Amino acid sequence: MLGEVDRSSRGAGLASVLGDWTAGSGPLYLKLTDALARAAKEGALRAGDRLPSERELARSLAVSRATVVAAYSELRDRGVLERRQGSGTRVAAGVRPPHSDGRVRGGQGTAIFQRLIDGPGSLISLACAAEGGAPEVADTLREVAEHDMASLLAEPGYHPRGLPALREALAEHYTALGVPTTPDQLLVTTGAHQALVLVAEVYLRQASTVVVEAPSWPACLDVFRAAHAELVHVPLDDEGIDERGLAAALAAHAPALLYVMPTYHNPTGVLMSEPRRRRVLELASRHGVPVLEDNAYAGCDLGTGDTAPPAPLAAFAGADAETITVESLGKAVWGGLRVGWVRGPAGLIERCARRKALADLGSPVIEQAMAARLVPRLAELAEHRSVLQRERCALLERLLREHLPDWRWRHPDGGSSLWVALPDASADVLAQVALRHGVEVIPGSAMDSTGAHDNHLRLPFTHPPDVMGELVRRLAAAWEELRRYGPSDCGPLRPIV
Amino acid sequence: MLGEVDRSSRGAGLASVLGDWTAGSGPLYLKLTDALARAAKEGALRAGDRLPSERELARSLAVSRATVVAAYSELRDRGVLERRQGSGTRVAAGVRPPHSDGRVRGGQGTAIFQRLIDGPGSLISLACAAEGGAPEVADTLREVAEHDMASLLAEPGYHPRGLPALREALAEHYTALGVPTTPDQLLVTTGAHQALVLVAEVYLRQASTVVVEAPSWPACLDVFRAAHAELVHVPLDDEGIDERGLAAALAAHAPALLYVMPTYHNPTGVLMSEPRRRRVLELASRHGVPVLEDNAYAGCDLGTGDTAPPAPLAAFAGADAETITVESLGKAVWGGLRVGWVRGPAGLIERCARRKALADLGSPVIEQAMAARLVPRLAELAEHRSVLQRERCALLERLLREHLPDWRWRHPDGGSSLWVALPDASADVLAQVALRHGVEVIPGSAMDSTGAHDNHLRLPFTHPPDVMGELVRRLAAAWEELRRYGPSDCGPLRPIV
Repeated sequence: MLGEVDRSSRGAGLASVLGDWTAGSGPLYLKLTDALARAAKEGALRAGDRLPSERELARSLAVSRATVVAAYSELRDRGVLERRQGSGTRVAAGVRPPHSDGRVRGGQGTAIFQRLIDGPGSLISLACAAEGGAPEVADTLREVAEHDMASLLAEPGYHPRGLPALREALAEHYTALGVPTTPDQLLVTTGAHQALVLVAEVYLRQASTVVVEAPSWPACLDVFRAAHAELVHVPLDDEGIDERGLAAALAAHAPALLYVMPTYHNPTGVLMSEPRRRRVLELASRHGVPVLEDNAYAGCDLGTGDTAPPAPLAAFAGADAETITVESLGKAVWGGLRVGWVRGPAGLIERCARRKALADLGSPVIEQAMAARLVPRLAELAEHRSVLQRERCALLERLLREHLPDWRWRHPDGGSSLWVALPDASADVLAQVALRHGVEVIPGSAMDSTGAHDNHLRLPFTHPPDVMGELVRRLAAAWEELRRYGPSDCGPLRPIV
Repeated sequence: MLGEVDRSSRGAGLASVLGDWTAGSGPLYLKLTDALARAAKEGALRAGDRLPSERELARSLAVSRATVVAAYSELRDRGVLERRQGSGTRVAAGVRPPHSDGRVRGGQGTAIFQRLIDGPGSLISLACAAEGGAPEVADTLREVAEHDMASLLAEPGYHPRGLPALREALAEHYTALGVPTTPDQLLVTTGAHQALVLVAEVYLRQASTVVVEAPSWPACLDVFRAAHAELVHVPLDDEGIDERGLAAALAAHAPALLYVMPTYHNPTGVLMSEPRRRRVLELASRHGVPVLEDNAYAGCDLGTGDTAPPAPLAAFAGADAETITVESLGKAVWGGLRVGWVRGPAGLIERCARRKALADLGSPVIEQAMAARLVPRLAELAEHRSVLQRERCALLERLLREHLPDWRWRHPDGGSSLWVALPDASADVLAQVALRHGVEVIPGSAMDSTGAHDNHLRLPFTHPPDVMGELVRRLAAAWEELRRYGPSDCGPLRPIV
């Protein structure tokens, strides 16, 4: 449990494990006690794990030191914690949770998923940046029911590579985008997320290195961590991943993969320019590094809609380059379809198909039959969705300018979130204060393990307008409280609770 | 690649990697050459891997030694193989396949899945024992389209635990079967297969031991191998897993899991009796071993239909026992739905839900909405399916008695296959001869790594009656050829081709 010890011993790490610990009624110290006891029972904390000091945890949770002192004391009485001479407070030796806690060691995404797992509760959660489904989904389902079911039901329904009709539709889609593609270069997956999992399993080994952007979406980084890879982080600018940083990382680490989100990067919303795409591919090709292109947000354009984004990276790859594209219908159509895919060299697709067979023998076929009908209409569907997203983005930006005038962000090129910088404040601490105001925030520290963005927040604009209004009011109240009473990055601790 | 070397150096292991190598036209030695070259290109064979001797491979593939000699010679000319002094024939040092070949090291299932991955071709394949979908599936989809889509589309569609309506339906289903269950004890998965993957990931570590039945379904055993577990095999009798063998294995190995298929075991079709269920649970409980119950074939009853099978194992577990049940709609309704689930203690389900979020963020929801409507009708649907299966089973048994009178099997209690014993012959060799007669057979050696059932075949009766007729004619022709010319377990090699 060493990775976990390292993580828990930092207050912010423990805070992410505790999640929504302030829910319910009763004294705050008892809620903290119960949350820590639950973490030990479920295995997120294990016998011998060292806890942060009282001062450090108080700061991370934005509570008074007395709250933490009382909680630790109660937990020692219950036998969950023990104070050891010279080594601080540790989880007691007798605490034996069964088996794994289900988390990736050192991972950051599963704490975020906890909201999806637990359900929304009374919080407004910013953990998920996704909308409901496009209205075309219901029509398409009726078409499948009427026209496709007889032939689908005639056979056993196991398609580890994906439904042939969908793979053909996708091949035509990429070919039309300037990336000539045959169906044997395509594997259908349960969302773009599973596509990343399969590619990672094929490419990565213990001590493999993956070059990633910083910040990035932590759930994807956890996929690489689960495959035992080491991450090397390169920052972004307004055109995409930084070229000098990338060149240095490729030269220094001989990575097994370069993972980038060129089209509407999550969380920053940056679109990689066409010149940058060309140079990134040149660099990767020169170093012989396969490029894994995550286009989960392709189709979520927030610009004027007058010009199409550049073609996928794969269009700029030379004959000797290895470029793998993962993508999905989740953002432009509906996440509930869980239809994603990998496009890549046929040999890689074959290997991924074997891993897919081992993982689940193939995804359900009805959504795939729907997707085969939706993919040819993807440009039109994405444009419908983008119109809605532009309105929502504009609304959130207006609300923030009004209620939180000192917060700053760059208007995103696409995607479904703002990447907001807080002036002189830790987003980890704001996240704790916001919890007590009924908002679950994903702080920058969860999206950048280099520590460079701990004053940032990802703010999705996927909620309906009335919820967004309430969200910004709650955030403003939390911000007001933090500014008035709370710790700043440099200042001394002043108890909020 | 040591595990792979061990496997490839045995002829039968290499044969399973080659799959359907006899397809296409041209001389047999060139087809073998190309199949071996492809295995090296795709990474199933790697630089330094030792190949079986010419004599051994000829025997495994039921071809003449001259065929193998010519293929090895051609591959040496092409630079794929090299003959090293004192260490036989090896894959040449220059052969560098990219990354993983997508297989589980030492696994046996992915070779079987290759048929699902490649598609049926002109072979009659016995790799998959599943039918088309029940007619009720199409009606249910129309109901979902009409009644459920509006509410489903109103939200983002990510449900790592599964759709709440389905989890409630499943909780009622188990409670009615005598296993009181709440929705938080249920996780929905992409088929029973993914359910096994998630449970294995939570329970198993490097060098964990899993006690399994021998024979068993290799795809499931590969799931445990992929989680780095060691397998300990216990045989079955007509009432289920052997009690004395089980007691000895539990005492000797302190396993992390006991994995059994009590209800219509795959491949034997055995139903574990109620007394045996009680004693298996007692033994597991005494040794503190969690029991993983795979009921993927529940509902595939082949008896008279007058008496229900015993309740799931979980019904017989004491309060201190840990029993996990995985099950699916794949066999009784349709595999294309890919709806499976895990039932277990709430804490375990929570951990599995975290792994599910990491694997794919949740399964597609439309099939889950369909399943929520189908689960309450499961008994009725299973009985419809069983009536059909009884007819097909009777047909296959009649055809075999007529065309292959020296083959033997026990009439299965349930499931969708016969487990056939060949008198005095290797099923590996029959599988090779059968390939050249247009049938893909899963030999017993693929389903029992103890080597105890290498004279057995799994014969599914899931094909339509006319295909079953053709299947048995082809098998009879292959058997005739093998009996006339082929190697027996004891006799000398006599070339067939």
